[in-house]
Amino acid sequence: MSVRHGRDFLAIPGPTTVPDEVLRAMHRPAIDIYSGDLIKLTESCLSDLKHIFRTDGRIYIYAANGHGAWEAALCNVLSRGDKVLVCQSGLFAVGWGEMAQVLGVEVEILPGDWRRAVDPAAVEARLKADTAGEIKAVLVVQIDTASSVVNDIAAIRKAIDAAEHDALYLVDTIASLATMHFDMDGWRIDVAVAGSQKGLMTPPGLSFIAASDKALAAHARADLVTRYWDWTFRDGEEHYMKYCGTPPEHLMFALRRALDLLLAEGLGKVIERHRLLAGAVHAAVDCWRQGGAVDFNIEKPQERSAAVTTVLCPGFAPSALLDFCRETCGVTLGVGIGGLGDKAFRIAHMGHVNAPMVLGTLGSIEVALVALAIPHGQGGVQAAADSLGRALAVKPA
Amino acid sequence: MSVRHGRDFLAIPGPTTVPDEVLRAMHRPAIDIYSGDLIKLTESCLSDLKHIFRTDGRIYIYAANGHGAWEAALCNVLSRGDKVLVCQSGLFAVGWGEMAQVLGVEVEILPGDWRRAVDPAAVEARLKADTAGEIKAVLVVQIDTASSVVNDIAAIRKAIDAAEHDALYLVDTIASLATMHFDMDGWRIDVAVAGSQKGLMTPPGLSFIAASDKALAAHARADLVTRYWDWTFRDGEEHYMKYCGTPPEHLMFALRRALDLLLAEGLGKVIERHRLLAGAVHAAVDCWRQGGAVDFNIEKPQERSAAVTTVLCPGFAPSALLDFCRETCGVTLGVGIGGLGDKAFRIAHMGHVNAPMVLGTLGSIEVALVALAIPHGQGGVQAAADSLGRALAVKPA
Amino acid sequence: MSVRHGRDFLAIPGPTTVPDEVLRAMHRPAIDIYSGDLIKLTESCLSDLKHIFRTDGRIYIYAANGHGAWEAALCNVLSRGDKVLVCQSGLFAVGWGEMAQVLGVEVEILPGDWRRAVDPAAVEARLKADTAGEIKAVLVVQIDTASSVVNDIAAIRKAIDAAEHDALYLVDTIASLATMHFDMDGWRIDVAVAGSQKGLMTPPGLSFIAASDKALAAHARADLVTRYWDWTFRDGEEHYMKYCGTPPEHLMFALRRALDLLLAEGLGKVIERHRLLAGAVHAAVDCWRQGGAVDFNIEKPQERSAAVTTVLCPGFAPSALLDFCRETCGVTLGVGIGGLGDKAFRIAHMGHVNAPMVLGTLGSIEVALVALAIPHGQGGVQAAADSLGRALAVKPA
Amino acid sequence: MSVRHGRDFLAIPGPTTVPDEVLRAMHRPAIDIYSGDLIKLTESCLSDLKHIFRTDGRIYIYAANGHGAWEAALCNVLSRGDKVLVCQSGLFAVGWGEMAQVLGVEVEILPGDWRRAVDPAAVEARLKADTAGEIKAVLVVQIDTASSVVNDIAAIRKAIDAAEHDALYLVDTIASLATMHFDMDGWRIDVAVAGSQKGLMTPPGLSFIAASDKALAAHARADLVTRYWDWTFRDGEEHYMKYCGTPPEHLMFALRRALDLLLAEGLGKVIERHRLLAGAVHAAVDCWRQGGAVDFNIEKPQERSAAVTTVLCPGFAPSALLDFCRETCGVTLGVGIGGLGDKAFRIAHMGHVNAPMVLGTLGSIEVALVALAIPHGQGGVQAAADSLGRALAVKPA
Repeated sequence: MSVRHGRDFLAIPGPTTVPDEVLRAMHRPAIDIYSGDLIKLTESCLSDLKHIFRTDGRIYIYAANGHGAWEAALCNVLSRGDKVLVCQSGLFAVGWGEMAQVLGVEVEILPGDWRRAVDPAAVEARLKADTAGEIKAVLVVQIDTASSVVNDIAAIRKAIDAAEHDALYLVDTIASLATMHFDMDGWRIDVAVAGSQKGLMTPPGLSFIAASDKALAAHARADLVTRYWDWTFRDGEEHYMKYCGTPPEHLMFALRRALDLLLAEGLGKVIERHRLLAGAVHAAVDCWRQGGAVDFNIEKPQERSAAVTTVLCPGFAPSALLDFCRETCGVTLGVGIGGLGDKAFRIAHMGHVNAPMVLGTLGSIEVALVALAIPHGQGGVQAAADSLGRALAVKPA
Repeated sequence: MSVRHGRDFLAIPGPTTVPDEVLRAMHRPAIDIYSGDLIKLTESCLSDLKHIFRTDGRIYIYAANGHGAWEAALCNVLSRGDKVLVCQSGLFAVGWGEMAQVLGVEVEILPGDWRRAVDPAAVEARLKADTAGEIKAVLVVQIDTASSVVNDIAAIRKAIDAAEHDALYLVDTIASLATMHFDMDGWRIDVAVAGSQKGLMTPPGLSFIAASDKALAAHARADLVTRYWDWTFRDGEEHYMKYCGTPPEHLMFALRRALDLLLAEGLGKVIERHRLLAGAVHAAVDCWRQGGAVDFNIEKPQERSAAVTTVLCPGFAPSALLDFCRETCGVTLGVGIGGLGDKAFRIAHMGHVNAPMVLGTLGSIEVALVALAIPHGQGGVQAAADSLGRALAVKPA
Repeated sequence: MSVRHGRDFLAIPGPTTVPDEVLRAMHRPAIDIYSGDLIKLTESCLSDLKHIFRTDGRIYIYAANGHGAWEAALCNVLSRGDKVLVCQSGLFAVGWGEMAQVLGVEVEILPGDWRRAVDPAAVEARLKADTAGEIKAVLVVQIDTASSVVNDIAAIRKAIDAAEHDALYLVDTIASLATMHFDMDGWRIDVAVAGSQKGLMTPPGLSFIAASDKALAAHARADLVTRYWDWTFRDGEEHYMKYCGTPPEHLMFALRRALDLLLAEGLGKVIERHRLLAGAVHAAVDCWRQGGAVDFNIEKPQERSAAVTTVLCPGFAPSALLDFCRETCGVTLGVGIGGLGDKAFRIAHMGHVNAPMVLGTLGSIEVALVALAIPHGQGGVQAAADSLGRALAVKPA
Repeated sequence: MSVRHGRDFLAIPGPTTVPDEVLRAMHRPAIDIYSGDLIKLTESCLSDLKHIFRTDGRIYIYAANGHGAWEAALCNVLSRGDKVLVCQSGLFAVGWGEMAQVLGVEVEILPGDWRRAVDPAAVEARLKADTAGEIKAVLVVQIDTASSVVNDIAAIRKAIDAAEHDALYLVDTIASLATMHFDMDGWRIDVAVAGSQKGLMTPPGLSFIAASDKALAAHARADLVTRYWDWTFRDGEEHYMKYCGTPPEHLMFALRRALDLLLAEGLGKVIERHRLLAGAVHAAVDCWRQGGAVDFNIEKPQERSAAVTTVLCPGFAPSALLDFCRETCGVTLGVGIGGLGDKAFRIAHMGHVNAPMVLGTLGSIEVALVALAIPHGQGGVQAAADSLGRALAVKPA
C-alpha cells in the first residue's frame, strides 16, 4: 500500500524544489538576444546577485553547472604551477582541488574530518608555515552537502589575516548562498562560486561567480584562462559576450523570478527561515538518535548546516528507509555520497522550503522508522513541531 | 517571522490541490471542436467516469460547477409540484433542497443533526408513512463538507427498500467520489452528482451526473428540464451537443489527465489512501482534544469522513489559528461555514494528497497550537505519524 | 509531404487562440475561495467587463459556456408564455430562440437570409404591428459565426425606438465583443451575452451577461428563473454566491490575464486591429473569387464581420482544402455549419490574432488552392499583404 | 497603429521557436539526480542524438551554450602549439578559431568570402602544401548564421582525402543539425558540435559533441583538456559524471521532448520541410530584389542555406524595417551581425517552423516594404505561396 499520490516531496540537496512561479517563468517563448527585454533582464540579475553575495565586486553568469563555475573560478585567477591549499571537510573542496590539479595547479590538502568543520587554527598554522608565499589561494566550501558541515568562513578569513598571508580566498557557496549568512565584501572573499539549483531555487544549468578587485588583479596575471570562462571577454560591450555566446534565456527567466521571490521575502528573513527549519530538523534527529540506529554525521551542533543534514545509520541500511519514503510516502531524500553510500541519508532543507514541507518530510521519515521497525527515539516530528512552535511563539498583546 | 516561503499547502475542502501534471495538461493551445482529438477525449472521459461512479448508466458532463449539476439533476427528473425528501446532516443537502424549491418542487426536510449522520431508520419511517407515494425523490449527500459527516448511502438504500418506496434516490457525491467507496449500480442510486474539484483533482468548472435507467425513465416524464441541462439534447449525435455548446476544452484536458492519474493508481488504492490519511488526521485531532480547546464536530468516529474533518474550537476563536497557519506556515485550512464561521475550522484531506502533505498540515497546526498557547493535548502530529507507521508496517520477510 | 511541423494555427471561430500568457496564468495551484486574492480578482473582472461592454449596468459571470449564458439571459427576464421576436441572419439567433421555446416562451422568427444582415426596417415593421405589446423581447446576434454576418445593432435599436415598442433588447455578443464596436449603454441594450472563448481570448467555460436597469426590473417580475442562473442570488453578499457555488478559479485566472492584455492594448486599438485584419482577409477572398470556385457567403461588403469570414465553395468540396491546410500546413480552418457543412469553410480572424497569423493562414489557403488545382484568382495573400501595407503606411517625416 | 497583438513570431537564427510541448516538458518539478527517471532520460537522449548526427561515435552533452561546446571540441583533441586550419565563410569559423588561439593553438585562416561558401579546392590546395603535416585539424561551419551560407561538408571531406592529409575534421553543425542533411560517419567527421537552440528546438543552455574513434584517439594524446569538458571524465560510470556535476534537468526534459518531436516527424521529413520552406523564402527574396533595395547576401542559389537567409539592404537602413516588423506586426527578424549590422537583416526558417509561420513572416516583411515605401519587386509572399503550392501539388488520383 502507498500513500504517496500527492505532490512529490523532493528533499535532496540540489536541485531543490523549484517554486511554481519559477517554473511558470520558464514557460514562455524564446525572445530576441540582441535587443529588448533580455538585456534588461541580464542587467537586473547581475545587480541583484551583488546584493545576494553582499558585494560591490563583479558578477559573472555562466551557462554551466556548479562544476563549470569551479573551473571558471580557478582558471581566471591561477596560473600553471601555482599552488593552492584545499581545506577538507567533506567531499566538495577536495573535488574542486582535483579540478585544479587537472588544470596544472599544485594542490595541497589541509586534512580534515568528515564529521567536523575546517579548523581555522590549522589554516592559520599552515599559512604561517608558508613563509615563501607559495600558496596562491585557499579553497574552502561554506556548506559541504556530502557531510552537511558548515564551515566558519569569517573565522577562516581571520586565520588568513592572522597568518599575514596574501593568498586569494576562494569560497564555494553553492549550497550556502541564500540559505545562511554570507558576506563577500565584509569577509574579504576574493572569489565566490554559486549555482542556480540550491538556495537560488532555479533549475540547474546556471552558475555564478563573484569576484573581488584582488581577484580581478590576479586575473590580469593568470595564464590558465580559456575563452568560455574568461572574465575579460565577458566584460565586453555586447550582450552575448556576457554569456560568451547564446544566453540561456529560459534559465534566466527562471532566475529572474527566483530573485524576485528572494528579494520580496527579504534576504534576512530567508536566512532566518532556514535557521528555524534546520532547528526543527535537528530537533527531530536529536530525538531519533536516542534509539541508537541513527545519528548526526556532524558531531558538534554549531557545525551542522542550515541547508542539509546528513544522518548516519549505524543501525541499518538506509536504502530501505529511502525506498519506503519515496515509494510509500512520496518523499525523496538524498542518498549518502562520497563513501557514505550505504551508511547515511541526507535531508535537505534549503531553498523553497517551509514548515509543512519540513514537517511533512520528517513525519514521513518517522512513519518509515515505525513501519520498518527501526529502533529510534520516538517523537521526532513532534520535537520538530514543538521547536518551531516555541520559536514562533506569539507574544500576548 | 514567517516560515511559509515554500510550496503553499491548500487544505480546504475544494478546490483541492491540482496535481502539477493536471495543470500542465491545461497548458496547451485550444484545438478544433468539430473533429479530431477532442471527440476522442470526450468519449474516453465518459467511459472512465462510468468506472469511477461504478455504473453502466449514462454520464453527463456539464460546463458548470457542482451547483449547476445539482440543478441539472433536479430539473431532469422532476416536475413542477413534485415533492422531495431532503435528508439533513449538515449544510449541503438543505442547499440542494432550496434549489429544488426555486424550481417549484415541494421540499420536505428530514431533520438531522450537524454532528451526526442521517439516520436510515428515520428515512425508512418517513417513507413508510408516505403511503400515497407523494415523495418522488430522496436527496442525500454522501459527505457533507461543512459538517464533515459521511452518510451511509448503502444503508439509506436499504431503508428505502425496507419502506418499499419507489422514490428516486439522488446522491450528492461531490466531496466523496474518488475519496471513498461509492457504488452507483450496486446501491441502485438513480442520480449521482459530482464536481471536478475535489476527489477528481481537476480545477473547478466541470460537473458530472450519472443517471440510472430509472432516472432516464423519470426524465422522459419530467417537465422542469431546460435546454442547457437537458439530457435528451446532450444525448444528440453531434459532439457540441454533449456540452450544449462549446466544450470547455482546457478543463477537459485537465480532467483527462486527472482520470489517468486515478486509474493508474487504481480506484481501490485511492480509497485506501484516503482512509489511511483520514486515520492520521483523526488520530491527531483525538490527541489535541485532550486539552479541551478543540473537538471533533462529528461525534461518532465511524461517521467522520475520509475527505475532510471539521474541528470545533470551543476554547478559542479559530481565526487566529487559521491566520497563523496561512501567514506563518503557508498552510491554508478551511473556514467553518454554515453557522460554524467563528466556531470551527476544517482540514481537508482529499484528492491529490499524500503522507507528507497531511503530516505537514497537521504539523503546522501543532506549531500554531504551541505558538498561540492554545490548550491542547500534545503529540497530535506524532500520533498521526505513528498511526500511519503502524498501518503501513512492513512485515518481516 | 507535410510542412506543418511548427506552431499549429487555429483559425476556427471559437475557441480562438489563447495567448501564451493566458495559458500561463492558469498554470498555478488552486487558492482559497473564501478570502484573499480570489475575491479581489472577481471584483476586478466585474469592473473591467463593464468597460468592455461599455455599460454601467450589472455584470454576471457564469461557470457555463455561451449556451448557458443564453439560458441565463432568457430565464432571468422572461416569464412562461411571454413572446419573443428572434431576428434570423444565420444560425445562432434561431438557436437561442429554440432555447426560449424549451423554457415555455412563445417564439416568433423574423425571417432572414443566411447571406444578409437583419433588416432593421423589417424589425420596425413587425414591432409596429405588435400594437398589443405582446412581444416582450427582441433577440439578435451581433455577429453570427455560421454566416459571418454582422448585424447593425445600433440601427435595430433605432428601429425599436421608431416603432415606439417597449420590448427588451437582448443581444448576443459572443463572437463580437472585443472584436468590434459594442456600446451597451449608448445603444440601450438590455441584456448582452458573451463568452470567454472568442474576442476575450480565454479558454471556453465562462460566460457573461451584462444587464441594464430595465432588464433588472424585468427580472423582478420574471418567473422562469432558476437558482443557478438567478441574478438576485448572485447579487448576494458572499463571494461564492457570485458564482452560485465554487468559483471556476483557473478560468478566472485566465480571464484576468486576458483582460489585462486587452486593456493594455486599448479596446479601441483592439477593434481597429480586427478591422484591418478583416480587411486583409476580405481582400484575399475578393481576389480568389475571381476564379469562380470560392465566394463570400455574405453578399454586401459592409455586412461582413470583423471576426470571421464564411467562404462558400461553389466549385469544389471544402473538405479537401480543410484537410490539406490542416495536415500539410498545420492550419485548422472552421468547417461550414448549419447547412453549409459541405458547402463552405470559415476563416476566423478574431481575438489574439495579428498580421503574420492572418497572412500565414491566407498564405496556406493559397498554397492549398494551388496544390489542389482549385480554380481561383491568383494573388490572394498578396492582396492581403498589400491591403495591410497601405493601411499601415508610414507617413514620411 | 499596430496589428501585432497575436502570437509573437520569432524569426531569428537562434534561439528558434520552442514548441509548446517542449516548453511544457520543462514545466515540472525537479527530480532526483542519483536514480530513477533521469538516468534513463540521459541514456535515451544520448542514443537518439547518435541517430540525429548519424554516427556510431560517442556523444557528450554539456551544460553550456554552443561556445562551450566549441571549447570542449578544441581542448579535447588538441595540444598546446598544434596548428589548425580555419575555413572562413562568414563569422563563426573565425570565432571558433579565436577560441583555439586563446587555448594556445596556432590558427591559420583559409581566407574566404562573406558571400560565398568555402572552396573545397582551396582546402585541398592548402592541405597538399602542408607536407610536414603541421595542420592537426580543419575547422569549418556547415551553416554560418551570419552570412547564411551553407558549406559543402562532403566536398571538403573529399578535398581532405584528395590531399591525403591526416588532419582531424571538425564541423560546427550548430545551425545545420536537423535542418539539413548531415552524415557524421558517412563523411568521416571527427568532431561535430551542436547546440540545443536551433534545429533541435530546445531552449539554449545545452550543447553537444559527437566524436569519432579518430577523435577519441587524438583525445588520448591531447594536453589542453580541462575537467569540465573532459570526455574521459564524462565517460565515467556515475550519472553525474556525464554532466560533470549536476545535470541541467529541465533543459534535458525539454531536449527529450524535442527529440520525440523530431523522431516522430522523421529526420528525412524534417530536412525536406526545411528545404521546401527555404525555397519559399528564397522565392520571396528573389522577387523583392527586382526592386533593387534588397538582395541575397549569398550569391549562388545552391550556397544559400535551408536554415537562415541573410538579406542585404543596399537601398535602405534595415533598422526601420526590423522595427516595423516587430512593433507593428509582431515579427522579430534577425539583425545583421559581424559587420552587416546596418546593412542586412536575417530571416530564420529553421527548427519548429511551418508553412504559415514562414508565409506570415514573409507577408509581414511585404507589409513593411509597402508601408515604408521601400522599392521592391512586388509579389514576394505570393511567390513564396506559389512555390510551396507547386512543390506540394497533389497528384490527381
